[in-house]
Amino acid sequence: MIKAAMQNTAQEVENLIKELLPESEFAENKLFEAMRYSVLNGGKRLRPFLLTETAKMFGVKHDNALRAASAVECIHSYSLVHDDLPAMDNSDLRRGNPTTHKKYGEATAILAGDGLLTYAFEILADNRTHEDAAVRCKLVSALAKASGMQGMVGGQMLDLIAETAAFDIGEVTRLQRMKTGELIAVSIEMGAILGQAANQDITALRNYAQGIGLVFQIVDDLLDYESTEEEMGKPVGRDEEAGKATFVTIMGIERAKEQATILTEQTIGHLSVFGEKGKTLEEIARYILERKN
Amino acid sequence: MIKAAMQNTAQEVENLIKELLPESEFAENKLFEAMRYSVLNGGKRLRPFLLTETAKMFGVKHDNALRAASAVECIHSYSLVHDDLPAMDNSDLRRGNPTTHKKYGEATAILAGDGLLTYAFEILADNRTHEDAAVRCKLVSALAKASGMQGMVGGQMLDLIAETAAFDIGEVTRLQRMKTGELIAVSIEMGAILGQAANQDITALRNYAQGIGLVFQIVDDLLDYESTEEEMGKPVGRDEEAGKATFVTIMGIERAKEQATILTEQTIGHLSVFGEKGKTLEEIARYILERKN
Repeated sequence: MIKAAMQNTAQEVENLIKELLPESEFAENKLFEAMRYSVLNGGKRLRPFLLTETAKMFGVKHDNALRAASAVECIHSYSLVHDDLPAMDNSDLRRGNPTTHKKYGEATAILAGDGLLTYAFEILADNRTHEDAAVRCKLVSALAKASGMQGMVGGQMLDLIAETAAFDIGEVTRLQRMKTGELIAVSIEMGAILGQAANQDITALRNYAQGIGLVFQIVDDLLDYESTEEEMGKPVGRDEEAGKATFVTIMGIERAKEQATILTEQTIGHLSVFGEKGKTLEEIARYILERKN
Repeated sequence: MIKAAMQNTAQEVENLIKELLPESEFAENKLFEAMRYSVLNGGKRLRPFLLTETAKMFGVKHDNALRAASAVECIHSYSLVHDDLPAMDNSDLRRGNPTTHKKYGEATAILAGDGLLTYAFEILADNRTHEDAAVRCKLVSALAKASGMQGMVGGQMLDLIAETAAFDIGEVTRLQRMKTGELIAVSIEMGAILGQAANQDITALRNYAQGIGLVFQIVDDLLDYESTEEEMGKPVGRDEEAGKATFVTIMGIERAKEQATILTEQTIGHLSVFGEKGKTLEEIARYILERKN
Protein backbone atom coordinates (compact mmCIF):
# COMPACT_ATOMS: atom_id res chain seq x y z
CA MET A 1 0.00 0.00 0.00
CA ILE A 2 2.73 2.40 0.93
CA LYS A 3 4.51 1.45 -2.27
CA ALA A 4 1.51 2.33 -4.40
CA ALA A 5 1.15 5.71 -2.66
CA MET A 6 4.86 6.35 -3.15
CA GLN A 7 4.67 5.46 -6.83
CA ASN A 8 1.74 7.77 -7.21
CA THR A 9 3.63 10.70 -5.66
CA ALA A 10 6.69 9.85 -7.74
CA GLN A 11 4.55 10.12 -10.86
CA GLU A 12 3.10 13.46 -9.79
CA VAL A 13 6.53 14.88 -9.00
CA GLU A 14 7.94 13.66 -12.30
CA ASN A 15 5.06 15.21 -14.23
CA LEU A 16 5.65 18.52 -12.48
CA ILE A 17 9.41 18.43 -13.07
CA LYS A 18 8.81 17.73 -16.76
CA GLU A 19 6.62 20.81 -16.82
CA LEU A 20 9.14 22.91 -14.89
CA LEU A 21 12.16 22.03 -17.01
CA PRO A 22 12.03 24.03 -20.23
CA GLU A 23 12.70 22.93 -23.77
CA SER A 24 14.54 25.35 -25.99
CA GLU A 25 15.04 25.79 -29.69
CA PHE A 26 18.52 27.11 -28.93
CA ALA A 27 21.74 25.15 -28.56
CA GLU A 28 21.62 25.21 -24.75
CA ASN A 29 18.77 22.72 -25.01
CA LYS A 30 21.47 20.08 -24.57
CA LEU A 31 21.81 21.32 -20.99
CA PHE A 32 18.08 21.10 -20.35
CA GLU A 33 18.09 17.57 -21.79
CA ALA A 34 20.91 16.53 -19.50
CA MET A 35 19.06 18.02 -16.52
CA ARG A 36 15.90 16.18 -17.49
CA TYR A 37 17.82 12.94 -17.94
CA SER A 38 19.48 13.37 -14.54
CA VAL A 39 16.31 14.00 -12.61
CA LEU A 40 13.87 11.76 -14.50
CA ASN A 41 15.68 8.47 -14.14
CA GLY A 42 13.18 6.50 -12.17
CA GLY A 43 14.17 7.13 -8.59
CA LYS A 44 11.87 6.03 -5.79
CA ARG A 45 11.32 9.70 -4.84
CA LEU A 46 11.50 8.95 -1.13
CA ARG A 47 12.25 12.57 -0.23
CA PRO A 48 9.30 14.00 -2.18
CA PHE A 49 7.05 11.40 -0.57
CA LEU A 50 8.27 12.34 2.92
CA LEU A 51 7.65 15.99 2.14
CA THR A 52 4.19 15.60 0.68
CA GLU A 53 3.04 13.15 3.37
CA THR A 54 4.27 15.46 6.15
CA ALA A 55 2.58 18.39 4.42
CA LYS A 56 -0.70 16.42 4.36
CA MET A 57 -0.59 16.11 8.15
CA PHE A 58 -0.86 19.91 8.32
CA GLY A 59 -3.43 20.44 5.57
CA VAL A 60 -1.03 21.96 3.02
CA LYS A 61 -2.31 22.38 -0.54
CA HIS A 62 -1.02 19.42 -2.52
CA ASP A 63 0.23 21.59 -5.41
CA ASN A 64 2.40 23.61 -3.04
CA ALA A 65 3.86 20.48 -1.48
CA LEU A 66 4.61 19.01 -4.91
CA ARG A 67 6.54 22.13 -5.97
CA ALA A 68 8.65 22.05 -2.81
CA ALA A 69 9.16 18.31 -3.32
CA SER A 70 10.38 18.95 -6.86
CA ALA A 71 12.95 21.39 -5.51
CA VAL A 72 14.26 18.77 -3.08
CA GLU A 73 14.47 16.24 -5.90
CA CYS A 74 16.46 18.72 -8.03
CA ILE A 75 18.96 18.97 -5.17
CA HIS A 76 19.07 15.21 -4.68
CA SER A 77 19.58 14.63 -8.40
CA TYR A 78 22.31 17.25 -8.77
CA SER A 79 24.20 15.65 -5.87
CA LEU A 80 24.10 12.27 -7.61
CA VAL A 81 25.30 13.76 -10.90
CA HIS A 82 28.28 15.48 -9.26
CA ASP A 83 28.97 12.51 -6.99
CA ASP A 84 29.18 10.17 -9.99
CA LEU A 85 31.80 12.34 -11.79
CA PRO A 86 35.21 10.80 -12.56
CA ALA A 87 36.91 13.06 -10.00
CA MET A 88 34.45 11.92 -7.32
CA ASP A 89 33.03 8.35 -7.24
CA ASN A 90 33.67 7.73 -10.95
CA SER A 91 30.49 5.73 -11.48
CA ASP A 92 29.32 4.68 -14.93
CA LEU A 93 25.94 3.37 -13.86
CA ARG A 94 23.04 4.82 -11.91
CA ARG A 95 19.74 2.96 -11.54
CA GLY A 96 20.76 0.71 -14.40
CA ASN A 97 21.41 3.58 -16.83
CA PRO A 98 24.58 5.41 -17.89
CA THR A 99 25.37 8.25 -15.49
CA THR A 100 24.90 11.78 -16.80
CA HIS A 101 28.58 12.34 -17.59
CA LYS A 102 28.74 9.00 -19.42
CA LYS A 103 25.80 10.01 -21.57
CA TYR A 104 26.42 13.76 -22.08
CA GLY A 105 30.11 14.24 -21.25
CA GLU A 106 31.72 15.55 -18.11
CA ALA A 107 31.43 19.29 -18.77
CA THR A 108 27.71 19.05 -19.48
CA ALA A 109 27.22 16.90 -16.36
CA ILE A 110 28.91 19.51 -14.18
CA LEU A 111 26.68 22.21 -15.65
CA ALA A 112 23.53 20.07 -15.41
CA GLY A 113 24.27 19.63 -11.71
CA ASP A 114 24.81 23.37 -11.26
CA GLY A 115 21.62 24.06 -13.18
CA LEU A 116 19.51 21.70 -11.06
CA LEU A 117 21.00 23.04 -7.83
CA THR A 118 20.22 26.62 -8.80
CA TYR A 119 16.76 25.79 -10.11
CA ALA A 120 15.74 24.27 -6.78
CA PHE A 121 15.94 27.71 -5.17
CA GLU A 122 14.20 29.39 -8.08
CA ILE A 123 11.27 26.99 -7.64
CA LEU A 124 11.07 27.63 -3.89
CA ALA A 125 11.21 31.43 -4.18
CA ASP A 126 8.32 31.47 -6.68
CA ASN A 127 4.99 32.51 -5.16
CA ARG A 128 3.28 29.47 -6.65
CA THR A 129 5.12 27.41 -4.00
CA HIS A 130 3.44 29.31 -1.17
CA GLU A 131 1.55 32.58 -1.02
CA ASP A 132 3.43 33.78 2.07
CA ALA A 133 6.95 35.04 1.31
CA ALA A 134 8.05 34.34 4.88
CA VAL A 135 7.24 30.65 4.37
CA ARG A 136 9.12 30.61 1.05
CA CYS A 137 12.19 32.18 2.66
CA LYS A 138 12.12 29.55 5.39
CA LEU A 139 12.02 26.84 2.73
CA VAL A 140 15.00 28.35 0.90
CA SER A 141 16.91 28.71 4.12
CA ALA A 142 16.20 25.19 5.37
CA LEU A 143 17.07 23.55 2.04
CA ALA A 144 20.26 25.60 1.61
CA LYS A 145 21.47 24.70 5.10
CA ALA A 146 20.68 21.01 4.73
CA SER A 147 22.27 20.68 1.32
CA GLY A 148 25.20 23.08 1.68
CA MET A 149 28.66 23.09 3.20
CA GLN A 150 27.42 22.27 6.70
CA GLY A 151 25.07 19.60 5.40
CA MET A 152 25.21 17.43 2.31
CA VAL A 153 28.17 19.06 0.55
CA GLY A 154 30.18 18.96 3.79
CA GLY A 155 29.23 15.30 4.11
CA GLN A 156 30.50 14.60 0.60
CA MET A 157 33.78 16.22 1.59
CA LEU A 158 33.98 13.94 4.64
CA ASP A 159 33.18 10.98 2.43
CA LEU A 160 36.20 11.79 0.24
CA ILE A 161 38.39 12.15 3.30
CA ALA A 162 37.07 8.85 4.70
CA GLU A 163 38.69 7.03 1.80
CA THR A 164 42.12 7.59 3.29
CA ALA A 165 41.37 8.31 6.98
CA ALA A 166 40.35 5.84 9.67
CA PHE A 167 36.96 7.17 10.83
CA ASP A 168 35.47 5.81 14.05
CA ILE A 169 31.77 5.10 14.58
CA GLY A 170 31.11 8.66 15.78
CA GLU A 171 32.77 10.15 12.73
CA VAL A 172 30.98 7.79 10.35
CA THR A 173 27.66 8.64 11.99
CA ARG A 174 28.35 12.37 11.62
CA LEU A 175 29.47 11.90 8.00
CA GLN A 176 26.31 9.99 7.10
CA ARG A 177 24.05 12.42 8.94
CA MET A 178 25.52 15.26 6.89
CA LYS A 179 25.79 13.43 3.58
CA THR A 180 22.39 11.73 3.52
CA GLY A 181 20.48 12.40 6.73
CA GLU A 182 20.15 16.16 6.43
CA LEU A 183 18.39 16.08 3.05
CA ILE A 184 15.99 13.40 4.26
CA ALA A 185 15.36 15.40 7.42
CA VAL A 186 14.79 18.67 5.59
CA SER A 187 12.22 17.02 3.32
CA ILE A 188 10.14 16.37 6.40
CA GLU A 189 10.91 19.80 7.85
CA MET A 190 9.83 21.51 4.62
CA GLY A 191 6.47 19.76 4.82
CA ALA A 192 6.10 21.16 8.33
CA ILE A 193 7.26 24.64 7.26
CA LEU A 194 4.65 24.68 4.48
CA GLY A 195 2.07 23.69 7.09
CA GLN A 196 3.27 26.35 9.51
CA ALA A 197 3.39 23.63 12.13
CA ALA A 198 3.72 24.34 15.87
CA ASN A 199 7.22 24.19 17.36
CA GLN A 200 6.54 21.03 19.38
CA ASP A 201 5.37 19.24 16.23
CA ILE A 202 8.48 20.36 14.40
CA THR A 203 10.67 19.04 17.21
CA ALA A 204 8.94 15.63 17.13
CA LEU A 205 9.30 15.49 13.35
CA ARG A 206 12.95 16.46 13.56
CA ASN A 207 13.64 13.59 15.92
CA TYR A 208 11.78 11.22 13.62
CA ALA A 209 13.70 12.59 10.63
CA GLN A 210 17.10 12.17 12.27
CA GLY A 211 16.19 8.58 13.08
CA ILE A 212 15.05 7.51 9.64
CA GLY A 213 18.05 9.26 8.08
CA LEU A 214 20.36 7.08 10.13
CA VAL A 215 18.39 3.90 9.46
CA PHE A 216 18.39 4.76 5.75
CA GLN A 217 22.18 4.88 5.75
CA ILE A 218 22.73 1.73 7.81
CA VAL A 219 20.45 -0.14 5.40
CA ASP A 220 22.34 1.42 2.47
CA ASP A 221 25.60 0.09 3.84
CA LEU A 222 24.04 -3.34 4.38
CA LEU A 223 22.72 -3.34 0.80
CA ASP A 224 26.10 -2.28 -0.55
CA TYR A 225 27.50 -5.31 1.25
CA GLU A 226 24.83 -7.92 0.64
CA SER A 227 22.98 -6.94 -2.51
CA THR A 228 23.81 -7.58 -6.16
CA GLU A 229 24.44 -5.04 -8.91
CA GLU A 230 21.28 -6.24 -10.63
CA GLU A 231 19.10 -5.54 -7.60
CA MET A 232 20.65 -2.12 -6.97
CA GLY A 233 21.03 -0.89 -10.56
CA LYS A 234 24.50 0.40 -9.67
CA PRO A 235 27.82 -1.18 -8.69
CA VAL A 236 27.87 -2.66 -5.17
CA GLY A 237 30.65 -3.54 -2.76
CA ARG A 238 32.42 -0.29 -3.60
CA ASP A 239 32.88 0.81 0.01
CA GLU A 240 34.43 -2.51 0.94
CA GLU A 241 36.78 -2.35 -2.04
CA ALA A 242 37.81 1.19 -1.16
CA GLY A 243 38.50 0.10 2.43
CA LYS A 244 36.08 2.78 3.56
CA ALA A 245 34.68 2.69 7.10
CA THR A 246 30.90 2.10 7.04
CA PHE A 247 28.40 1.02 9.67
CA VAL A 248 28.83 -2.53 8.42
CA THR A 249 32.63 -2.58 8.47
CA ILE A 250 32.66 -1.08 11.96
CA MET A 251 29.74 -2.91 13.57
CA GLY A 252 29.52 -6.06 11.50
CA ILE A 253 26.41 -7.24 9.64
CA GLU A 254 24.46 -8.65 12.56
CA ARG A 255 24.90 -5.70 14.88
CA ALA A 256 24.16 -3.25 12.05
CA LYS A 257 20.86 -5.07 11.36
CA GLU A 258 19.96 -5.10 15.03
CA GLN A 259 20.81 -1.42 15.37
CA ALA A 260 18.66 -0.51 12.36
CA THR A 261 15.69 -2.39 13.80
CA ILE A 262 16.00 -0.84 17.26
CA LEU A 263 16.44 2.65 15.79
CA THR A 264 13.35 2.22 13.64
CA GLU A 265 11.20 1.43 16.68
CA GLN A 266 12.64 4.39 18.61
CA THR A 267 12.06 6.63 15.62
CA ILE A 268 8.44 5.60 15.28
CA GLY A 269 8.02 6.49 18.96
CA HIS A 270 8.47 10.18 18.11
CA LEU A 271 5.30 10.05 16.01
CA SER A 272 3.01 9.19 18.93
CA VAL A 273 1.99 12.86 19.39
CA PHE A 274 0.36 12.77 15.97
CA GLY A 275 -1.87 9.76 16.62
CA GLU A 276 -3.57 8.42 13.47
CA LYS A 277 -2.13 11.25 11.39
CA GLY A 278 1.36 9.85 11.88
CA LYS A 279 0.56 6.42 10.43
CA THR A 280 1.99 7.04 6.96
CA LEU A 281 5.30 8.31 8.35
CA GLU A 282 5.36 5.18 10.52
CA GLU A 283 4.90 3.01 7.45
CA ILE A 284 7.65 4.93 5.65
CA ALA A 285 10.03 4.21 8.54
CA ARG A 286 9.31 0.48 8.23
CA TYR A 287 9.67 0.66 4.47
CA ILE A 288 13.11 2.29 4.84
CA LEU A 289 14.20 -0.50 7.16
CA GLU A 290 12.95 -3.30 4.93
CA ARG A 291 13.76 -1.99 1.45
CA LYS A 292 15.79 -4.19 -0.86
CA ASN A 293 17.23 -1.45 -3.12
CA MET B 1 38.46 58.05 -7.48
CA ILE B 2 36.18 55.27 -8.67
CA LYS B 3 39.03 52.83 -8.20
CA ALA B 4 39.48 53.82 -4.57
CA ALA B 5 35.74 53.46 -3.91
CA MET B 6 35.76 50.08 -5.60
CA GLN B 7 38.73 48.92 -3.55
CA ASN B 8 36.97 50.06 -0.42
CA THR B 9 33.84 48.06 -1.24
CA ALA B 10 35.98 45.07 -2.21
CA GLN B 11 37.57 45.19 1.23
CA GLU B 12 34.21 45.40 2.98
CA VAL B 13 32.80 42.48 1.00
CA GLU B 14 35.89 40.39 1.66
CA ASN B 15 35.70 41.10 5.38
CA LEU B 16 32.07 40.05 5.42
CA ILE B 17 32.72 36.87 3.43
CA LYS B 18 35.52 35.94 5.85
CA GLU B 19 33.02 36.33 8.66
CA LEU B 20 30.33 34.36 6.84
CA LEU B 21 32.50 31.39 5.90
CA PRO B 22 32.95 29.17 8.96
CA GLU B 23 36.04 27.49 10.28
CA SER B 24 35.63 24.01 11.67
CA GLU B 25 37.62 21.75 13.93
CA PHE B 26 36.31 18.82 11.87
CA ALA B 27 37.79 17.29 8.75
CA GLU B 28 35.37 19.11 6.41
CA ASN B 29 37.33 22.27 7.21
CA LYS B 30 39.27 21.45 4.03
CA LEU B 31 36.10 22.31 2.11
CA PHE B 32 35.67 25.62 3.93
CA GLU B 33 39.33 26.44 3.21
CA ALA B 34 38.88 25.71 -0.48
CA MET B 35 35.74 27.90 -0.55
CA ARG B 36 37.61 30.71 1.21
CA TYR B 37 40.54 30.35 -1.21
CA SER B 38 38.18 30.43 -4.20
CA VAL B 39 36.34 33.54 -3.17
CA LEU B 40 39.11 35.54 -1.47
CA ASN B 41 41.56 35.67 -4.33
CA GLY B 42 41.75 39.38 -4.94
CA GLY B 43 39.09 39.97 -7.55
CA LYS B 44 38.06 43.50 -8.39
CA ARG B 45 34.56 42.83 -7.01
CA LEU B 46 32.87 44.71 -9.82
CA ARG B 47 29.52 42.99 -9.20
CA PRO B 48 29.43 43.81 -5.47
CA PHE B 49 30.33 47.41 -6.30
CA LEU B 50 27.52 47.66 -8.84
CA LEU B 51 25.10 46.23 -6.28
CA THR B 52 26.10 48.47 -3.37
CA GLU B 53 26.29 51.61 -5.52
CA THR B 54 22.84 50.96 -6.99
CA ALA B 55 21.51 50.26 -3.49
CA LYS B 56 22.91 53.61 -2.32
CA MET B 57 20.80 55.41 -4.93
CA PHE B 58 17.70 54.11 -3.13
CA GLY B 59 18.86 54.62 0.45
CA VAL B 60 19.39 50.93 1.27
CA LYS B 61 21.19 50.11 4.53
CA HIS B 62 24.81 49.45 3.63
CA ASP B 63 24.98 46.24 5.68
CA ASN B 64 22.06 44.78 3.78
CA ALA B 65 23.62 45.67 0.44
CA LEU B 66 26.93 44.12 1.48
CA ARG B 67 25.27 40.83 2.38
CA ALA B 68 23.49 40.65 -0.97
CA ALA B 69 26.77 41.58 -2.68
CA SER B 70 28.53 38.73 -0.88
CA ALA B 71 25.93 36.31 -2.20
CA VAL B 72 26.54 37.51 -5.77
CA GLU B 73 30.28 37.12 -5.26
CA CYS B 74 29.78 33.53 -4.01
CA ILE B 75 27.96 32.80 -7.28
CA HIS B 76 30.61 34.51 -9.38
CA SER B 77 33.39 32.63 -7.59
CA TYR B 78 31.72 29.23 -7.86
CA SER B 79 31.29 29.77 -11.60
CA LEU B 80 35.02 30.46 -11.98
CA VAL B 81 35.94 27.37 -9.94
CA HIS B 82 33.75 25.08 -12.04
CA ASP B 83 34.73 26.84 -15.29
CA ASP B 84 38.43 26.28 -14.56
CA LEU B 85 38.00 22.50 -14.06
CA PRO B 86 39.87 20.11 -16.38
CA ALA B 87 36.61 19.01 -18.02
CA MET B 88 35.72 22.64 -18.74
CA ASP B 89 38.37 25.30 -19.54
CA ASN B 90 41.19 23.34 -17.87
CA SER B 91 42.91 26.45 -16.46
CA ASP B 92 45.79 26.22 -14.02
CA LEU B 93 45.99 29.90 -13.21
CA ARG B 94 43.45 32.45 -12.01
CA ARG B 95 44.48 35.99 -11.06
CA GLY B 96 48.09 34.85 -10.88
CA ASN B 97 47.38 32.01 -8.44
CA PRO B 98 46.79 28.28 -8.88
CA THR B 99 43.11 27.56 -9.59
CA THR B 100 41.13 25.84 -6.84
CA HIS B 101 41.41 22.36 -8.36
CA LYS B 102 45.17 22.80 -8.83
CA LYS B 103 45.52 23.69 -5.16
CA TYR B 104 42.94 21.40 -3.52
CA GLY B 105 42.27 18.70 -6.11
CA GLU B 106 39.41 18.31 -8.50
CA ALA B 107 36.87 16.66 -6.20
CA THR B 108 37.28 19.34 -3.54
CA ALA B 109 36.99 22.06 -6.19
CA ILE B 110 33.68 20.63 -7.45
CA LEU B 111 32.36 20.56 -3.89
CA ALA B 112 33.71 24.03 -3.07
CA GLY B 113 31.79 25.34 -6.08
CA ASP B 114 28.62 23.55 -4.99
CA GLY B 115 29.08 24.89 -1.47
CA LEU B 116 29.50 28.50 -2.60
CA LEU B 117 26.54 28.24 -4.97
CA THR B 118 24.29 26.91 -2.22
CA TYR B 119 25.54 29.37 0.38
CA ALA B 120 24.61 32.34 -1.82
CA PHE B 121 20.94 31.47 -1.36
CA GLU B 122 21.33 30.79 2.33
CA ILE B 123 22.77 34.30 2.75
CA LEU B 124 19.93 35.91 0.79
CA ALA B 125 17.14 34.07 2.65
CA ASP B 126 18.50 35.18 6.03
CA ASN B 127 16.54 38.06 7.61
CA ARG B 128 19.77 39.98 8.20
CA THR B 129 19.84 40.61 4.44
CA HIS B 130 16.49 42.41 4.55
CA GLU B 131 13.74 42.58 7.15
CA ASP B 132 11.00 42.02 4.56
CA ALA B 133 10.68 38.40 3.45
CA ALA B 134 9.08 39.46 0.16
CA VAL B 135 12.24 41.42 -0.69
CA ARG B 136 14.43 38.44 0.23
CA CYS B 137 12.38 36.12 -1.98
CA LYS B 138 12.73 38.53 -4.89
CA LEU B 139 16.51 38.53 -4.38
CA VAL B 140 16.63 34.71 -4.37
CA SER B 141 14.46 34.54 -7.44
CA ALA B 142 16.41 37.15 -9.41
CA LEU B 143 19.80 35.64 -8.59
CA ALA B 144 18.65 32.08 -9.34
CA LYS B 145 17.25 33.11 -12.72
CA ALA B 146 20.32 35.10 -13.70
CA SER B 147 22.80 32.44 -12.66
CA GLY B 148 20.87 29.31 -13.60
CA MET B 149 20.11 27.31 -16.71
CA GLN B 150 18.51 30.22 -18.55
CA GLY B 151 21.28 32.59 -17.50
CA MET B 152 24.90 31.97 -16.59
CA VAL B 153 24.87 28.15 -16.57
CA GLY B 154 23.06 28.12 -19.92
CA GLY B 155 25.68 30.55 -21.21
CA GLN B 156 28.48 28.25 -20.09
CA MET B 157 26.78 25.46 -22.02
CA LEU B 158 26.68 27.65 -25.13
CA ASP B 159 30.32 28.52 -24.58
CA LEU B 160 31.22 24.82 -24.69
CA ILE B 161 29.18 24.34 -27.83
CA ALA B 162 30.81 27.42 -29.42
CA GLU B 163 34.13 25.59 -29.41
CA THR B 164 32.96 23.36 -32.22
CA ALA B 165 30.09 25.34 -33.77
CA ALA B 166 30.30 28.43 -35.98
CA PHE B 167 28.33 31.05 -34.03
CA ASP B 168 27.30 34.24 -35.77
CA ILE B 169 27.31 37.69 -34.14
CA GLY B 170 23.75 37.26 -32.85
CA GLU B 171 24.56 33.92 -31.27
CA VAL B 172 27.78 35.22 -29.73
CA THR B 173 25.90 38.21 -28.30
CA ARG B 174 23.27 35.94 -26.79
CA LEU B 175 25.93 33.59 -25.40
CA GLN B 176 27.78 36.46 -23.75
CA ARG B 177 24.64 38.04 -22.38
CA MET B 178 23.76 34.75 -20.71
CA LYS B 179 27.26 33.79 -19.61
CA THR B 180 28.43 37.14 -18.24
CA GLY B 181 25.82 39.82 -18.80
CA GLU B 182 23.04 38.34 -16.67
CA LEU B 183 25.08 38.22 -13.47
CA ILE B 184 26.29 41.78 -13.98
CA ALA B 185 22.73 42.89 -14.69
CA VAL B 186 21.29 41.11 -11.67
CA SER B 187 23.83 42.79 -9.39
CA ILE B 188 22.30 46.11 -10.36
CA GLU B 189 18.76 44.71 -10.19
CA MET B 190 19.37 43.36 -6.67
CA GLY B 191 20.43 46.83 -5.51
CA ALA B 192 17.14 48.13 -6.87
CA ILE B 193 15.14 45.26 -5.32
CA LEU B 194 16.68 46.01 -1.91
CA GLY B 195 15.70 49.65 -2.42
CA GLN B 196 12.18 48.70 -3.50
CA ALA B 197 12.68 50.95 -6.49
CA ALA B 198 9.82 52.08 -8.74
CA ASN B 199 9.21 50.13 -11.95
CA GLN B 200 10.38 52.92 -14.26
CA ASP B 201 13.67 53.14 -12.35
CA ILE B 202 14.12 49.39 -12.59
CA THR B 203 13.52 49.53 -16.35
CA ALA B 204 16.15 52.27 -16.78
CA LEU B 205 18.63 50.31 -14.68
CA ARG B 206 17.95 47.13 -16.64
CA ASN B 207 18.77 48.91 -19.88
CA TYR B 208 21.94 50.29 -18.34
CA ALA B 209 22.84 46.84 -17.01
CA GLN B 210 22.35 45.12 -20.38
CA GLY B 211 24.59 47.73 -21.95
CA ILE B 212 27.50 47.48 -19.55
CA GLY B 213 27.28 43.69 -19.60
CA LEU B 214 27.83 43.73 -23.33
CA VAL B 215 30.63 46.32 -23.15
CA PHE B 216 32.26 44.26 -20.41
CA GLN B 217 32.39 41.24 -22.70
CA ILE B 218 33.60 43.09 -25.79
CA VAL B 219 36.43 44.56 -23.70
CA ASP B 220 37.13 41.10 -22.30
CA ASP B 221 37.52 39.72 -25.79
CA LEU B 222 39.78 42.65 -26.73
CA LEU B 223 41.92 42.06 -23.64
CA ASP B 224 42.13 38.34 -24.40
CA TYR B 225 43.46 39.34 -27.80
CA GLU B 226 45.74 42.27 -26.95
CA SER B 227 46.80 41.85 -23.34
CA THR B 228 49.64 39.79 -21.83
CA GLU B 229 49.39 36.95 -19.31
CA GLU B 230 51.22 39.18 -16.81
CA GLU B 231 48.65 41.97 -17.02
CA MET B 232 45.70 39.58 -16.85
CA GLY B 233 46.97 37.12 -14.23
CA LYS B 234 45.64 34.27 -16.38
CA PRO B 235 46.45 32.80 -19.79
CA VAL B 236 45.43 34.99 -22.74
CA GLY B 237 44.78 34.31 -26.42
CA ARG B 238 42.87 31.15 -25.50
CA ASP B 239 39.79 31.99 -27.54
CA GLU B 240 41.89 32.62 -30.62
CA GLU B 241 43.75 29.35 -30.12
CA ALA B 242 40.51 27.44 -29.69
CA GLY B 243 39.18 29.03 -32.88
CA LYS B 244 36.21 30.28 -30.88
CA ALA B 245 34.00 33.02 -32.30
CA THR B 246 34.27 36.19 -30.18
CA PHE B 247 33.34 39.81 -30.81
CA VAL B 248 36.93 40.39 -31.92
CA THR B 249 37.16 37.47 -34.32
CA ILE B 250 33.82 38.42 -35.88
CA MET B 251 34.06 42.24 -35.89
CA GLY B 252 37.80 42.81 -35.94
CA ILE B 253 39.71 44.87 -33.34
CA GLU B 254 38.87 48.31 -34.62
CA ARG B 255 35.16 47.79 -35.02
CA ALA B 256 34.96 46.04 -31.64
CA LYS B 257 36.60 49.06 -29.99
CA GLU B 258 34.30 51.47 -31.77
CA GLN B 259 31.26 49.41 -30.86
CA ALA B 260 32.29 49.31 -27.17
CA THR B 261 32.69 53.10 -27.10
CA ILE B 262 29.35 53.78 -28.78
CA LEU B 263 27.56 51.29 -26.54
CA THR B 264 29.06 52.90 -23.44
CA GLU B 265 27.67 56.30 -24.40
CA GLN B 266 24.25 54.82 -25.18
CA THR B 267 24.32 52.95 -21.90
CA ILE B 268 25.12 56.06 -19.90
CA GLY B 269 22.12 57.71 -21.56
CA HIS B 270 19.80 55.39 -19.62
CA LEU B 271 21.01 56.96 -16.37
CA SER B 272 19.74 60.46 -17.19
CA VAL B 273 16.52 59.90 -15.19
CA PHE B 274 18.62 59.66 -12.03
CA GLY B 275 20.45 62.99 -12.44
CA GLU B 276 23.35 63.43 -9.99
CA LYS B 277 22.50 60.15 -8.27
CA GLY B 278 23.51 58.26 -11.39
CA LYS B 279 27.05 59.67 -11.54
CA THR B 280 28.78 56.67 -9.95
CA LEU B 281 27.12 54.20 -12.30
CA GLU B 282 28.24 56.45 -15.15
CA GLU B 283 31.81 56.32 -13.90
CA ILE B 284 31.58 52.54 -13.59
CA ALA B 285 30.48 52.29 -17.22
CA ARG B 286 33.55 54.30 -18.29
CA TYR B 287 35.76 52.21 -16.05
CA ILE B 288 34.46 49.00 -17.67
CA LEU B 289 35.26 50.41 -21.11
CA GLU B 290 38.76 51.56 -20.19
CA ARG B 291 39.93 48.77 -17.87
CA LYS B 292 43.22 47.05 -18.65
CA ASN B 293 42.59 43.73 -16.88
